Amino acid sequence: MSLLENYQQIRQKTIEFCSLLEIEDYAIQVVDFASPAKWHLAHTTWFFETFILKNQVKDYQEFDKNFNYLFNSYYNNVGKRILQNNRGNMSRPSTSKVLDYRKYVDVKMQEFLKDIADKKVIDLVTLGLNHEQQHQELLITDVKYMLGHNPLLPSLDSAFNLVKDSNIDTKKIKIKAGIYEIGYQGNDFCYDNELGVHKVYVDDFEINNHLITNGEYLEFMNSGGYSDFNFWLDEGWTWVNNDKINAPMYWHKIDNEWHYYTLAGLQKVDKNAILSHINYYEASAFAEWKGMRLPTEFEWEIASNNLDWGKRWEWTNSAYLAYPRFEKENGAVGEYNGKFMSNKMVLRGASVATSKNHSRNTYRNFFHSSDRWQFTGLRLAK
Amino acid sequence: MSLLENYQQIRQKTIEFCSLLEIEDYAIQVVDFASPAKWHLAHTTWFFETFILKNQVKDYQEFDKNFNYLFNSYYNNVGKRILQNNRGNMSRPSTSKVLDYRKYVDVKMQEFLKDIADKKVIDLVTLGLNHEQQHQELLITDVKYMLGHNPLLPSLDSAFNLVKDSNIDTKKIKIKAGIYEIGYQGNDFCYDNELGVHKVYVDDFEINNHLITNGEYLEFMNSGGYSDFNFWLDEGWTWVNNDKINAPMYWHKIDNEWHYYTLAGLQKVDKNAILSHINYYEASAFAEWKGMRLPTEFEWEIASNNLDWGKRWEWTNSAYLAYPRFEKENGAVGEYNGKFMSNKMVLRGASVATSKNHSRNTYRNFFHSSDRWQFTGLRLAK
Amino acid sequence: MSLLENYQQIRQKTIEFCSLLEIEDYAIQVVDFASPAKWHLAHTTWFFETFILKNQVKDYQEFDKNFNYLFNSYYNNVGKRILQNNRGNMSRPSTSKVLDYRKYVDVKMQEFLKDIADKKVIDLVTLGLNHEQQHQELLITDVKYMLGHNPLLPSLDSAFNLVKDSNIDTKKIKIKAGIYEIGYQGNDFCYDNELGVHKVYVDDFEINNHLITNGEYLEFMNSGGYSDFNFWLDEGWTWVNNDKINAPMYWHKIDNEWHYYTLAGLQKVDKNAILSHINYYEASAFAEWKGMRLPTEFEWEIASNNLDWGKRWEWTNSAYLAYPRFEKENGAVGEYNGKFMSNKMVLRGASVATSKNHSRNTYRNFFHSSDRWQFTGLRLAK
Amino acid sequence: MSLLENYQQIRQKTIEFCSLLEIEDYAIQVVDFASPAKWHLAHTTWFFETFILKNQVKDYQEFDKNFNYLFNSYYNNVGKRILQNNRGNMSRPSTSKVLDYRKYVDVKMQEFLKDIADKKVIDLVTLGLNHEQQHQELLITDVKYMLGHNPLLPSLDSAFNLVKDSNIDTKKIKIKAGIYEIGYQGNDFCYDNELGVHKVYVDDFEINNHLITNGEYLEFMNSGGYSDFNFWLDEGWTWVNNDKINAPMYWHKIDNEWHYYTLAGLQKVDKNAILSHINYYEASAFAEWKGMRLPTEFEWEIASNNLDWGKRWEWTNSAYLAYPRFEKENGAVGEYNGKFMSNKMVLRGASVATSKNHSRNTYRNFFHSSDRWQFTGLRLAK
Repeated sequence: MSLLENYQQIRQKTIEFCSLLEIEDYAIQVVDFASPAKWHLAHTTWFFETFILKNQVKDYQEFDKNFNYLFNSYYNNVGKRILQNNRGNMSRPSTSKVLDYRKYVDVKMQEFLKDIADKKVIDLVTLGLNHEQQHQELLITDVKYMLGHNPLLPSLDSAFNLVKDSNIDTKKIKIKAGIYEIGYQGNDFCYDNELGVHKVYVDDFEINNHLITNGEYLEFMNSGGYSDFNFWLDEGWTWVNNDKINAPMYWHKIDNEWHYYTLAGLQKVDKNAILSHINYYEASAFAEWKGMRLPTEFEWEIASNNLDWGKRWEWTNSAYLAYPRFEKENGAVGEYNGKFMSNKMVLRGASVATSKNHSRNTYRNFFHSSDRWQFTGLRLAK
Repeated sequence: MSLLENYQQIRQKTIEFCSLLEIEDYAIQVVDFASPAKWHLAHTTWFFETFILKNQVKDYQEFDKNFNYLFNSYYNNVGKRILQNNRGNMSRPSTSKVLDYRKYVDVKMQEFLKDIADKKVIDLVTLGLNHEQQHQELLITDVKYMLGHNPLLPSLDSAFNLVKDSNIDTKKIKIKAGIYEIGYQGNDFCYDNELGVHKVYVDDFEINNHLITNGEYLEFMNSGGYSDFNFWLDEGWTWVNNDKINAPMYWHKIDNEWHYYTLAGLQKVDKNAILSHINYYEASAFAEWKGMRLPTEFEWEIASNNLDWGKRWEWTNSAYLAYPRFEKENGAVGEYNGKFMSNKMVLRGASVATSKNHSRNTYRNFFHSSDRWQFTGLRLAK
Repeated sequence: MSLLENYQQIRQKTIEFCSLLEIEDYAIQVVDFASPAKWHLAHTTWFFETFILKNQVKDYQEFDKNFNYLFNSYYNNVGKRILQNNRGNMSRPSTSKVLDYRKYVDVKMQEFLKDIADKKVIDLVTLGLNHEQQHQELLITDVKYMLGHNPLLPSLDSAFNLVKDSNIDTKKIKIKAGIYEIGYQGNDFCYDNELGVHKVYVDDFEINNHLITNGEYLEFMNSGGYSDFNFWLDEGWTWVNNDKINAPMYWHKIDNEWHYYTLAGLQKVDKNAILSHINYYEASAFAEWKGMRLPTEFEWEIASNNLDWGKRWEWTNSAYLAYPRFEKENGAVGEYNGKFMSNKMVLRGASVATSKNHSRNTYRNFFHSSDRWQFTGLRLAK
Repeated sequence: MSLLENYQQIRQKTIEFCSLLEIEDYAIQVVDFASPAKWHLAHTTWFFETFILKNQVKDYQEFDKNFNYLFNSYYNNVGKRILQNNRGNMSRPSTSKVLDYRKYVDVKMQEFLKDIADKKVIDLVTLGLNHEQQHQELLITDVKYMLGHNPLLPSLDSAFNLVKDSNIDTKKIKIKAGIYEIGYQGNDFCYDNELGVHKVYVDDFEINNHLITNGEYLEFMNSGGYSDFNFWLDEGWTWVNNDKINAPMYWHKIDNEWHYYTLAGLQKVDKNAILSHINYYEASAFAEWKGMRLPTEFEWEIASNNLDWGKRWEWTNSAYLAYPRFEKENGAVGEYNGKFMSNKMVLRGASVATSKNHSRNTYRNFFHSSDRWQFTGLRLAK
């Protein structure tokens, strides 16, 4: 597929998901970490305008000079930006103006992409498309968060049930101790945080092919898992008690039966489906209860060719830190990954909400230990 | 005018203002105290459905059973309600569904009003219409707050400039000491908090006919009013310092000149226009600086027949407390006013955003000492 | 008694109470509104040093130049001061240094008082002594707060039981409608907020001689008073629910029986003793439940000659605002009362912790509606 | 040295430091993370009483049954405990009672230690002594925090200047790539988190022998280090801006010259002395500015035999996570380290406040990325 076709397909996919939304759904921000749909639409567009069009297209007229301020997410190198917790204060610019913005930039971009040859620019466009795919997943999880916290628990679309898959495989993969190479070695796109290929020594280990199901997690819950401090990290235990947590996110006990909110509405918990929406504290407590542990990100990567993966982002027992030879790029693009390397854990794999062909077995996703609004699950090792 | 015609006119007026809004403007809540437009539209409708239709119309089918929960504001007597700071979390029900709700209730109400005779029910409908008028003013001030805190400072409508009026009258009204009667004594509608007609003794006093202008307030500002603690109440001084206040709400200093945000967009401060958007602390500091004081609500009411009033809600030096013979009504309607009688000050008059014929010279409006998003001003006495 | 003798007695009384304290008791601040004992000792001394000695005594050497900063409470006119919530951060200066400070100032003051004649200076010393008496009461209530929130609930002194008194009087005082004069008219000391003698008109009213007892309040509690919103002001109801309040401050239910903490330790609630440690919301809810109301401060003052008062500070239904002819004094002393006139209610009377001869029937005490760490009670009227 | 002698010496050392304190210094808690001296004294004693005396000594009478509740720090296995941020609310039990507690337990312990042979019990006593040494360091840093936040900036003792040392060594240690063993392999005491000896592969690296000095850090500051986001982790940049940070903790600019607070009082910053009181964000920003990086904890341990270490706790670029074969002990002692393994970074080395012979080259200290009240510094690698 040409870069132009790729651009068209990926940009179109964002719009397709949004066609399910009511206009008001675009504007609202319920919580700091989940941005409004309108913002995602504009921010991904801003990326192309700022890093490609303004730099590469002669006499490019920017769509609206305020948009740099409104839709920059965290790039300090490209000027001021509104704070993340103020993104939901903006009824204006309206959704229709934001959609105009997308069309305006798409026209310019498609023209520009017709005869593009410079490797550096191609790489930047490719980064922009991967960036858009990341926001496609965030769009889904942020909309789910908003509707899942609306007292009406509305269904977005009856066909949209992202937590329904299951697995019953009990295969265990055994890996021998030794020195392995970690990091991306191919020629296609990858993020900077996957580079810095390096060797690690790992001991003998065993890792399960199957992801924990709701049924298995219910056993943990029913055996008192949320009320026995012995299984929990200290910060996790504080979280459980302060926030009165007794189940994964989106779970509701109704008439003594567990249900969960999905984008297709409220449903009974399916015991065979793969567990989702847990945070690192819960993943770690479950593993402790089982007498096992989470794999490190290195173990995961080494074993990945023998694993079925791609249904949940899997918490690993590795902190998100730089690889030994990690090099930040210069300028704004260098802010993409490196500066977030503190107080986060690595997740490996991909989820049902991840764009096709977006992830890799060297992909390093990262969230705070307490985050659980992504489609997150766990796999055990020992 | 018949009650039916009155109902139609008042309900229609709410919709007229809303026709200026973008769909996204209906849904957003920027701050706890300012509710989304969609909520105002639904809540005023809920009032008629709950207190009239459900009680009076046989076999009335409620529009949606969830709406009682979503759109009850503070009436504990009629069930659970969502917290005020969660009203902006709701993208659903959509604006169009809320407008359907209004139409549905309006049809039923208009049918019902055709042959209504029961005095108690007529009084309740009249209360509902006055309630709607109060929310018409809140709609304007809440939308102004939302747009006035949008980084784009968008204009709602170029014709909409509610702070443009002025006055240059210097008349002083002198009132002799004596016993006066306070409270509503007519036969038309009034709120319960105006009843309990009672006598008060007031000393000789003098009250200005004119409301303080922006120009006069600028003199206070330019003479260092916001940085001299001697003029301020202790809580006011804390507020000024903690929130780094140096001007009324919506004022911005741009290129060394004061501007303010209006619903017609950003404008230069008009020195002849009447001051607006100040709180009790600022009103009281200004009076102290002038060597004068605010009138009490009794002085205001006694002098009111000789005053021009109706352009700003005027801060008085009276706390909002019950009149000696105040009687709370039974049930939910009794929650209308009485339970708010703590830590608020009385404002008298009416503002440019107040519905025509809504206020009276016995009307007791009330807000916290720190509130300033209403069209509030001041008049001096001594 | 001479001013010198008065000075000696009052200053000595402060020290006497403190002799019951452990050294560590002097330093700790548990909550913003209750200052450490060490601070009270120093601040009352600072008052004499700052307003008398520095101004009146030639070549007076101040004890320590840092103390102005550390022990100024809220007088903006005399320089910077540390914030109220930082008073408990200071282990140094040590208690023994603070006691040295008291001795140093006492020696200078006693010398100075030997031949003092200037009426203005005598008035200022008298103000300082009344100020010290106010802090004597705060010392008791602040120490009670600290020990009452220590998990050991330690007794300060077995003889110290300030909530033991009782009353069984059922006399009702009836007052005729008419014009009455309010405010202090004598020649002795009073605070500025009692001046501005003025006339008020009051209607016929009836006021009880007896203060509500614990037994009567228990009836309110047992009949569900804390769980029925109909009795509560809106802000009171929010407070009850947010803070999960179900009894007056210091009450603990142990083995199904109500106890309360006193400075003599934990005791069973004495049903005949007068209720204490309630706030305005509780006072007002109780009155509502009884179908009666709190008196206004004017009614209280008018009836006071026929009332037994002095055991509890009695919540009135009057906001703390300036009397019509209230005049702030110039300079720092003018900050004593006037600037606190917002969002507080007036309490009349005196309590078991109030210094002898300190209060009067025109005395206006004032606290926030939510405060209940003072010895506060209520009397009904109608 | 016998275990008994060791016990006596270590317990005595705690008391020696405390002899410098005023009584009030024992009681006050200025910030959640720094406990009062009184609490440290009691908590270390509680450890011996709870884990040794109560389990091993027949008919042991506990000193005070409330102390288990008051002085348990975080051991959920041994009952309830007061929250960390309430430790400073307690004026009682008094310091003298806490000292009695120490004497009581010391007498019992010394008797018990005379003929102790059981290896498990000896290990537990040894753990208690290492625990006491950890609290000796916390005592120093917590007292420094309290006095360093007292507006008087009092000196504890003129001899007490813990930041005066210096180094000028420029040696660089080069280590060859290969597999190395990590973790404690000796026969003496170590913490459980040092066990789980395992192999790691490290690449070629170079590490400096010298720790960064104040002079070097001043260059970073003077070149605008605190105002250029390019050097900072995202969370670090937020911290710098929210808390308006422009220097290490305890630094004050006075008359345009940098001073710092030490336990010997305020002093001019010594450029040759080793930098102290920085957090991970600052360490990481400095390294970025220098174009270098922090060592990992593995690199540090591998190189440690060739390094001078022991003057500052050195931030590493490793998150505090379990070693591959880490095994939590059963019961309360298992809560010592493992449950804290989230959102913290490892520090290696020891500081001027660390007890002699307490640390090792395998010792894993850990703090939050934002903590800087310990004597923390940094060493560069590449």
